Amino acid sequence: MFVELDLQSEEPIYMQLADQLIEGIASGQLRPGEPLPSVRSLAADLGINLHTVNKAYNVLKQEGFLEVHRKKGVIIQPGAMPAITESFLAKLDHQVQVLAAEASVRGMSESAFVERCLRAYRHVRNNMSGGTTE
Amino acid sequence: MFVELDLQSEEPIYMQLADQLIEGIASGQLRPGEPLPSVRSLAADLGINLHTVNKAYNVLKQEGFLEVHRKKGVIIQPGAMPAITESFLAKLDHQVQVLAAEASVRGMSESAFVERCLRAYRHVRNNMSGGTTE
Repeated sequence: MFVELDLQSEEPIYMQLADQLIEGIASGQLRPGEPLPSVRSLAADLGINLHTVNKAYNVLKQEGFLEVHRKKGVIIQPGAMPAITESFLAKLDHQVQVLAAEASVRGMSESAFVERCLRAYRHVRNNMSGGTTE
Repeated sequence: MFVELDLQSEEPIYMQLADQLIEGIASGQLRPGEPLPSVRSLAADLGINLHTVNKAYNVLKQEGFLEVHRKKGVIIQPGAMPAITESFLAKLDHQVQVLAAEASVRGMSESAFVERCLRAYRHVRNNMSGGTTE
């Protein structure tokens, strides 16, 4: 797995894990229908609590990014991924505004900020080409 | 004050407060050299712990967004605001990538995502015109 956690971060560990699974889906490193490690084995690999892995999986199941398969266990959503919801847009706008505010105060221009956002989107999509091979 | 806290959020309260003070600076609602409420009075106004306000002020002082004035107490940085640092760029890139990944998985196109980031930047800068008058 490509998961890298920052145990010193203010961001809860389960959110870091959930974010990185979504990044894995976005980059194509995690394919639709692909089984994830069991809660127990991923917790052991990462050296974190079972509950933390469980919480990350549950959040992503609730949102529809993961599914439970009768035989394979937890798998990446094999069908349609979750759509763009109002609550996702509210989160996106809020978080980008916080970042834009700090960027602006620090003197980053509108075009430099937008360019950075564009590169982030492309980086996420193209991560596979420069990333690990599986 | 325009501060609005979400006590249910996973984001620590002191970070929400720090973020909103930076948004206030970005929009011009908080002017360079302007004094902030004392830790005690802001904590009372917001119904939160003294330590929480103190932590937000300290983070912003360390970064250079706030300063301590001998007579006025804590004030908005009256001189040059903090510059674009490597650590800010790392935070920006990381957080935008997380959002871009989810946007991409949910089917938001590159151009729609970038447009949203542009609007967020403009919203932050123009908040004054549509916002509260002081």
